Amino acid sequence: MAASIIPFSITHEPIFPKFSKSPFTRNHKPTKLVTRNNSSSIGELVSEQNQQHHHAQRNSTYKPKLEEHLPRLPEEWREIQGENEWAGLLEPMDPLLRTELIRYGEMAQACYDAFDFDPFSKYCGSCRFTRRNFFSSLGMAHHGYTITRYLYATANINLPNFFKQSRWPKMWSKNANWAGYVAVSDDATAKKIGRRDITIAWRGTVTRLEWVADLMDFLKPISWNKIPCPDPTVKVESGFLELYTDKEESCGYCKYSAREQILTEVKRLLEVYKMEEVSITITGHSLGSALAILSAYDIVETGVNVTGDCRGVGVTVLSFSGPRVGNVRFKERLERLGVKVLRVVNVHDVVPKTPGFVFNEQVPAMVMKVAEGLPWSYSHVGVELALDHKKSPFLNPNADPVSAHNLEALLHLIDGYHGKGQRFVLATGRDPALVNKGCDFLKDHYLVPPCWRQDENKGMIRSNDGRWVQPERPKLDDHPEDMHHHLTQLGLANSYHI
Amino acid sequence: MAASIIPFSITHEPIFPKFSKSPFTRNHKPTKLVTRNNSSSIGELVSEQNQQHHHAQRNSTYKPKLEEHLPRLPEEWREIQGENEWAGLLEPMDPLLRTELIRYGEMAQACYDAFDFDPFSKYCGSCRFTRRNFFSSLGMAHHGYTITRYLYATANINLPNFFKQSRWPKMWSKNANWAGYVAVSDDATAKKIGRRDITIAWRGTVTRLEWVADLMDFLKPISWNKIPCPDPTVKVESGFLELYTDKEESCGYCKYSAREQILTEVKRLLEVYKMEEVSITITGHSLGSALAILSAYDIVETGVNVTGDCRGVGVTVLSFSGPRVGNVRFKERLERLGVKVLRVVNVHDVVPKTPGFVFNEQVPAMVMKVAEGLPWSYSHVGVELALDHKKSPFLNPNADPVSAHNLEALLHLIDGYHGKGQRFVLATGRDPALVNKGCDFLKDHYLVPPCWRQDENKGMIRSNDGRWVQPERPKLDDHPEDMHHHLTQLGLANSYHI
Repeated sequence: MAASIIPFSITHEPIFPKFSKSPFTRNHKPTKLVTRNNSSSIGELVSEQNQQHHHAQRNSTYKPKLEEHLPRLPEEWREIQGENEWAGLLEPMDPLLRTELIRYGEMAQACYDAFDFDPFSKYCGSCRFTRRNFFSSLGMAHHGYTITRYLYATANINLPNFFKQSRWPKMWSKNANWAGYVAVSDDATAKKIGRRDITIAWRGTVTRLEWVADLMDFLKPISWNKIPCPDPTVKVESGFLELYTDKEESCGYCKYSAREQILTEVKRLLEVYKMEEVSITITGHSLGSALAILSAYDIVETGVNVTGDCRGVGVTVLSFSGPRVGNVRFKERLERLGVKVLRVVNVHDVVPKTPGFVFNEQVPAMVMKVAEGLPWSYSHVGVELALDHKKSPFLNPNADPVSAHNLEALLHLIDGYHGKGQRFVLATGRDPALVNKGCDFLKDHYLVPPCWRQDENKGMIRSNDGRWVQPERPKLDDHPEDMHHHLTQLGLANSYHI
Repeated sequence: MAASIIPFSITHEPIFPKFSKSPFTRNHKPTKLVTRNNSSSIGELVSEQNQQHHHAQRNSTYKPKLEEHLPRLPEEWREIQGENEWAGLLEPMDPLLRTELIRYGEMAQACYDAFDFDPFSKYCGSCRFTRRNFFSSLGMAHHGYTITRYLYATANINLPNFFKQSRWPKMWSKNANWAGYVAVSDDATAKKIGRRDITIAWRGTVTRLEWVADLMDFLKPISWNKIPCPDPTVKVESGFLELYTDKEESCGYCKYSAREQILTEVKRLLEVYKMEEVSITITGHSLGSALAILSAYDIVETGVNVTGDCRGVGVTVLSFSGPRVGNVRFKERLERLGVKVLRVVNVHDVVPKTPGFVFNEQVPAMVMKVAEGLPWSYSHVGVELALDHKKSPFLNPNADPVSAHNLEALLHLIDGYHGKGQRFVLATGRDPALVNKGCDFLKDHYLVPPCWRQDENKGMIRSNDGRWVQPERPKLDDHPEDMHHHLTQLGLANSYHI
């Protein structure tokens, strides 16, 4: 009964190439691939990558090499964190910087993967995991970080597309949305990366781009919302400012503003690790990037990064697909304070072009001088790493605008970027299938299902009596007992009515 | 740090009522609920059911009672299988018949739940489970049946919305689609239900209604496709006929037609169980109902249900949301052959109204007489159980037409139906949350996510090297070795070129 059928046991065909050795270490110029660039079409490249890949399959030696360049980190982490404004690290792309961008990008991506945005869930708007199980639940235990605090924002402000609310009448909180976390590298990781790293990751908006339209596109002096600033002409987008400073005292989760949560936690951690070398790395995608830049500014302007022995701990923002945050005075103030910002963007993404479509850092200085007084004259900050999804042979060049804003896709672009004009070649072995987790961006012939990341039965489980129910979740931590103590020390307690 | 938040530990609120004792057994008239019918709005009913339910929660005594009436089955199964055309069992609804309709309806539903309809899957169009793991994978091991054979149809015929094809270039089969199964009650179940039951379940079309438009709406003499029939005026819809009789000899899975698969398997099983009392129950939803009726006709017309000692094994069709299949001659022929058909429909579903929108069993006999010669003059068969989703307080009365055709919703309607004009009250404790498995039909305030049945990460898993891949599946059985032997015995071998 043999038949001319194709058997079920076809080997899965992964979709990235194999290189026995990474052609891009800091000391090896990618000459071979550069010369190839002119002679290969993208189609040929893909087919060639597939062949290389088949070879890899047979030898079964292929391993992701995200950690390959990490041994350099204890020596070079200051440079990687932007001490010299990333000079010489972007063109060509430094493989250690690439590794670090992907590592922190995954910390930002975790905010999406952990967020419950199903309005039919009674925990909608919260984090799906307790902070102790956060990284292990996401398969990220190897990152070697411990979350010390979850961050919450009040949903009372006018950014409806940032906040998700449950349809359940009895919710975990009517006012709060989970907004990210503060994590610290554990001892083993601290040793591996050369310092104790405090990472703050801010959640962005989920999937759609409507939140851009929610922005009031109105610059407001930063000091109006009680963030100290010696210069009243330093202004930021009022929506970001409110998101960062608003609170709702009737709610256990957002009775403190995001600002108060961040400042007290950074202060507390710097006391805990006062005998160590420490870095503060703030990351976020999209709206999360705006919060990252704003909180970085605040930490340094407020001085909570200054330790007892008067060392200033460096603050770095690794921003992904972020919008503009403030005016040119804000940019200058950030620079004077020494906050380092590396902004990774996809040039086809509309979000980094907002707010400030008309007046921004790209118009001539003379025009900007005139426009400076206008409340909608924005400026990007820091150093930009501009990537182009049309350079990746894996991606559909004509995907929808939401895909161009996708964080997983941006991490894929970082993985294949080697410098301007260089050929796109995946360097770390990061799985391109991840691109389609939450969008439809990979070319169809790679046969990765679009938007494939989903929970079994939308999280419903069968109870003992056979009924399908939403399982209970353990209560999330709200805020530590010593908040008031830290707020008092920061001189912020008076704004809080106990 | 206590706060006025709502804790995470709110108890889940299930959505069906609690009755300490079912008010509807065969000997108890539902008088209490009937009188209530006039005084309660649906809103009051729901609120009342919720209260009853809260009471149930506290006492935690509620158990589904699908099996409550089964002990009557060894005595009464012939009547339940339609020996007397279900006279007296529908008004009021007999609780044992309800139980049996749900039991077989779940066997039909299993065909959807097991079908791989994701075009990004390389096993698209196949069954997700091997036949030995079928019921256990679906949490239906308690049904007590063993699948003896999978059924396949060729996708070569012109019903594009019935067939699903993978986008993968190397598929498990280019021509075949999994179309259902043949199962036999195991020894324990056979004892419990009073006979050895052969169940044939046909898969219908997935989710959408486009397949109705695919039908050519053209009646064709049944004998033209080599199904024996003494009367050339007996006609059925040509699309159903082709689906049932076509084959593709180059494909291991559909080198035999669905017809050949069914007839040989029934014949084989009747030989295996020739010393026992046997029933044949054929079920299917939607297009699967058409195949159920056609195959029931064929089994009896061909005589494969006649055992060695000349007993004719009864053949019953339990049809769900089925379209018309043939003309009035086909109906009469089915009746003469003694095939029993119970058709359960939702009166708001368009599918049972097709084909034959114009000329059907509902026009006056005189008109029908004139129209009889037309090739689009259809007639329903058997006994109809007409349900109305607007009677269920759980369902959104204005849901889309696809919901009105949904099988899980129909099983919910069966569960709450007690007779014409009777109040809708769930009888077996079957979970109404199941309604939303594949549609958005429950009222929003029940907070069951719409279309909640889904695989984790669309079936993608992480391989040992960290990449996301589609796992391999074991090869599905094609056809037994002794097919040709059985075909020869049936006189069908000449149509098969070995």
